[in-house]
Amino acid sequence: MEGKFKRPTNQELLLQEILQEALDLPLSGESANYIPALASINPNQCGIALANLDGEVHVAGDADVPFSIQSVSKIFGLVMAMLRMGDDLWRRVRMEPSGHAFNSIVQLEWEHGIPRNPFINAGAIVVADTLVSHYSASKSALMSFVRGLADNQDIHVNQDIFQSEKMHGSRNAALAYLMKSFANIDADVNDALDHYFYQCSIDMSCRDVARSLGFLANRGVQPHSGDQICSRRDAHRLNAILQTSGMYDQSGEFAFEVGLPAKSGVGGGIVAVVPNYGVICAWSPRLNQYGNSCLGMYMITRLAKKLGLSVY
Amino acid sequence: MEGKFKRPTNQELLLQEILQEALDLPLSGESANYIPALASINPNQCGIALANLDGEVHVAGDADVPFSIQSVSKIFGLVMAMLRMGDDLWRRVRMEPSGHAFNSIVQLEWEHGIPRNPFINAGAIVVADTLVSHYSASKSALMSFVRGLADNQDIHVNQDIFQSEKMHGSRNAALAYLMKSFANIDADVNDALDHYFYQCSIDMSCRDVARSLGFLANRGVQPHSGDQICSRRDAHRLNAILQTSGMYDQSGEFAFEVGLPAKSGVGGGIVAVVPNYGVICAWSPRLNQYGNSCLGMYMITRLAKKLGLSVY
Amino acid sequence: MEGKFKRPTNQELLLQEILQEALDLPLSGESANYIPALASINPNQCGIALANLDGEVHVAGDADVPFSIQSVSKIFGLVMAMLRMGDDLWRRVRMEPSGHAFNSIVQLEWEHGIPRNPFINAGAIVVADTLVSHYSASKSALMSFVRGLADNQDIHVNQDIFQSEKMHGSRNAALAYLMKSFANIDADVNDALDHYFYQCSIDMSCRDVARSLGFLANRGVQPHSGDQICSRRDAHRLNAILQTSGMYDQSGEFAFEVGLPAKSGVGGGIVAVVPNYGVICAWSPRLNQYGNSCLGMYMITRLAKKLGLSVY
Amino acid sequence: MEGKFKRPTNQELLLQEILQEALDLPLSGESANYIPALASINPNQCGIALANLDGEVHVAGDADVPFSIQSVSKIFGLVMAMLRMGDDLWRRVRMEPSGHAFNSIVQLEWEHGIPRNPFINAGAIVVADTLVSHYSASKSALMSFVRGLADNQDIHVNQDIFQSEKMHGSRNAALAYLMKSFANIDADVNDALDHYFYQCSIDMSCRDVARSLGFLANRGVQPHSGDQICSRRDAHRLNAILQTSGMYDQSGEFAFEVGLPAKSGVGGGIVAVVPNYGVICAWSPRLNQYGNSCLGMYMITRLAKKLGLSVY
Repeated sequence: MEGKFKRPTNQELLLQEILQEALDLPLSGESANYIPALASINPNQCGIALANLDGEVHVAGDADVPFSIQSVSKIFGLVMAMLRMGDDLWRRVRMEPSGHAFNSIVQLEWEHGIPRNPFINAGAIVVADTLVSHYSASKSALMSFVRGLADNQDIHVNQDIFQSEKMHGSRNAALAYLMKSFANIDADVNDALDHYFYQCSIDMSCRDVARSLGFLANRGVQPHSGDQICSRRDAHRLNAILQTSGMYDQSGEFAFEVGLPAKSGVGGGIVAVVPNYGVICAWSPRLNQYGNSCLGMYMITRLAKKLGLSVY
Repeated sequence: MEGKFKRPTNQELLLQEILQEALDLPLSGESANYIPALASINPNQCGIALANLDGEVHVAGDADVPFSIQSVSKIFGLVMAMLRMGDDLWRRVRMEPSGHAFNSIVQLEWEHGIPRNPFINAGAIVVADTLVSHYSASKSALMSFVRGLADNQDIHVNQDIFQSEKMHGSRNAALAYLMKSFANIDADVNDALDHYFYQCSIDMSCRDVARSLGFLANRGVQPHSGDQICSRRDAHRLNAILQTSGMYDQSGEFAFEVGLPAKSGVGGGIVAVVPNYGVICAWSPRLNQYGNSCLGMYMITRLAKKLGLSVY
Repeated sequence: MEGKFKRPTNQELLLQEILQEALDLPLSGESANYIPALASINPNQCGIALANLDGEVHVAGDADVPFSIQSVSKIFGLVMAMLRMGDDLWRRVRMEPSGHAFNSIVQLEWEHGIPRNPFINAGAIVVADTLVSHYSASKSALMSFVRGLADNQDIHVNQDIFQSEKMHGSRNAALAYLMKSFANIDADVNDALDHYFYQCSIDMSCRDVARSLGFLANRGVQPHSGDQICSRRDAHRLNAILQTSGMYDQSGEFAFEVGLPAKSGVGGGIVAVVPNYGVICAWSPRLNQYGNSCLGMYMITRLAKKLGLSVY
Repeated sequence: MEGKFKRPTNQELLLQEILQEALDLPLSGESANYIPALASINPNQCGIALANLDGEVHVAGDADVPFSIQSVSKIFGLVMAMLRMGDDLWRRVRMEPSGHAFNSIVQLEWEHGIPRNPFINAGAIVVADTLVSHYSASKSALMSFVRGLADNQDIHVNQDIFQSEKMHGSRNAALAYLMKSFANIDADVNDALDHYFYQCSIDMSCRDVARSLGFLANRGVQPHSGDQICSRRDAHRLNAILQTSGMYDQSGEFAFEVGLPAKSGVGGGIVAVVPNYGVICAWSPRLNQYGNSCLGMYMITRLAKKLGLSVY
């Protein structure tokens, strides 16, 4: 396996080149506009960060600008729930790819309220429900966990976005009530949703995200601190779900073209895990038809090809 | 990456131990019975083969008994079609996980006759259609290709199973006619189905299957011959589709627990690719609720854990 | 058309005979048990009332016992909404049969939040939403309307059932939030649901129900008062929707076997309209697999056959 | 019930007036174009016939031009199957409205190959299958039956359309094979489809159709011959299915606006039954979005309103 990865002598320069290529592309896609607080963000921002297993982080562009991580936050919620609930979690949510648009209610009905995986909205709401039920102050616990992972106390929830999410959350409420009707929500529906929207509203930079998830590339051990965040087995499992289900209805294509576990959010962020190598986070608000960042996809695809990062 | 894989001093012994563990398990599952020719096979057979990249094959149990490879054959058809059609293929079939039972007609209707991936029946029928359309004698071409890959001229189609498949093929005919109505079948429907059933009816042993697919673990180069079967990129892509879609509606769970690209068939065979290491093929006819071999799953899971083979 | 209906000399006696036949049948079916307040009702009660256009009501059995009218109340809500909104109503709910179980969320998703008809739960919730939006006190308005139609001030909401419905209303909440996400609920979701559950919780006797809906059999004119409740055209339309959609997923069979517009509720009530003749209401709590009263179906079918009441 | 129907002194004049109104409307809709033989028909033709129970037929416009009756033929097939199979038929096809577009395969999958009613394509193919299985020469038997009903030996199958249907029948073949896979087709699939396409390809005029179905308005007795074609009960049942399911996904709206059992075909014909009064057949090739003749709908709606024909 030696020599599988070509470590470039100057990673910063490589990131800078790829960023420039991305910025030179014709504009395409549009920012998420289902809530005003997301629609008002400057859509032309673009950044990338690469956190190596030695603890270093290389960046280019707007990699230190906090953005709304949205569904990328589903990883944090899932890790907390796996740690807290163990394998019991998998009786309430499956780990199969969904094969549908990311928020379809149809499959949930067919499968009696058991979401196919924790990265579709319904699955993340179940995860939120377990956190609300197991923690006396689940929102504080979440923020502590995220700040600790990123080693940055200056990570916050964007209150505008949080309020905005709650105002436009009817579809997620429909998912939650449907699961409640199948007895797969334990807490009050409003409390589970409140946690879920709060989690989606965290602002982090590319650097923060890449650093915070290093343990997924390192068998559960956080590179910069040496802490065992989760078991090696759970790190493998998280990567597996990211691979099959992390990129909405473009997950298969992403595995096909890039070959890395990854998760995107409608805020324009994408994080990709390179087992035994590091974590990449790219961000740019304009989204393609699947809800994935156009430039984020471009930059991660280019970087993975240049460095031969595919797990396959 | 050095030392990632623990290569045991005696792989044959390890396979033998795992086989014995499998045979000691309480019996569970039943053979496929939708066609008499499959139902009549001795369900207690069990074998495993591991082909390394140096060309060696280690085996245990019934690893030299030919069995009906069924859906494992979808890999061979797909490789031929990728070679013949290039990226045009992906306008006729997607590479997204299906999120449904393996032969559901519902999704095909929703998505206007474009199958989600080439490992569900509808997708494999489209692949068969491209082969029928591009080869003057597609069935001979297929057999030559498979025999060449396995380096074994003594691989044949089981005529009983072939006839039996055709007699019980109404559901696949429904899929094919539905795609024809969306203009996604070019050839005569009967010809496409004939090729598809023929392909499913190939008999191969665990040793044959493991040897034949070595190139998927070796960046497109067949280990025992040194031939470049497909590009490195296409080998990565094939593994990606295997990972997200190869194990029916248990694909996510297999990625989660084992972390390897794999494909199963209702004949009881499962093949798993270990990039940069080798190919495993296990076989035993009794199937679990998802249509995957019970003992095959057990043996591959055990082997992957003992050797630390997960790609994640 | 003279002589189409055989008016028996003694209608009371005929009802009594049919009731006795029903009571002599082997017991089958079970009461609705999704809420305790319904499950606790004596399941062996059975009554029938026939209101003629001359204002007379003939009864047998427990025809004066108030029961939970449940979905029969959807007729009252719909009449109020048709009067208040006119044809605008039909932009928010269609009048097509649903072809599914009565509370399926799937179709609502496919059809972008527009329910197929006002007699499935989603449709009735839209109707409730229009009433909440158009009346300052929609619940009082409803009770006044129902009491006036039945000419009985002693009609009330069963508070136990009302509270129980609200406690077990997750599925209806899911429907409502899903429609809200498609902008087809104007009021606050909780207010629309509150009205909907209130309406379902009205208690009326067979006599009350039969008398209250006489106008549907009489071109919009209430027989006992002479009031024009709705236009002749709207009376026709209401009967048409009752015919195609009033009996859950047994609507077609009911039209086929009985040939009358009808509506049932899970409280065990069924009301059938005989145009130009009268209204029948039967009640008995045990339900068949479709959620329709077993003995109610029996009695109405027998009566319609004996008197030749089919509209066809 | 006296005076329910206003019989006009001059029915021919009334039809003429309504026809003229229809011809004065702005053009809308397009002819069916899925087969060339239908697309080539002059789309501006328009005719109407009204057959009274006394045996008289009143006509206006192109009421004597034979047109492709298409799905109107499903009535003839169904009557034959009901006569031949009795209530056994209803174990193979239900009588519930479908709630979907007329040829959806989704519901058939969900309901294990049992079509919801005999007027969707799947249901009519099951009906065709029963005829093929019960008659040694089902196509001849069908033609004899239809000619006898219409009292016209000069009714034929349009061979161009028959061949064209067979060439473009992939979707119906998909439905048939799917039902075969659920064991709900007994004959060879090709034979059942052959009969089905043959039946769809009958040419009849408005006059022929209206005369041939008089027994449905007359308790099973054919007005012009006095023959008892089917039982009174079966006539009622046929009308009930026509009412709930005869007009594709506009069946509810048709019941709502017109209030008559009816069946349409993509050739532009619509037949409506007025129980105890007569049968109307209108024809004009341009279709609305639901596949129903634009001018046919207009003329029947107008006539029903002018004469007060609604069954409600």
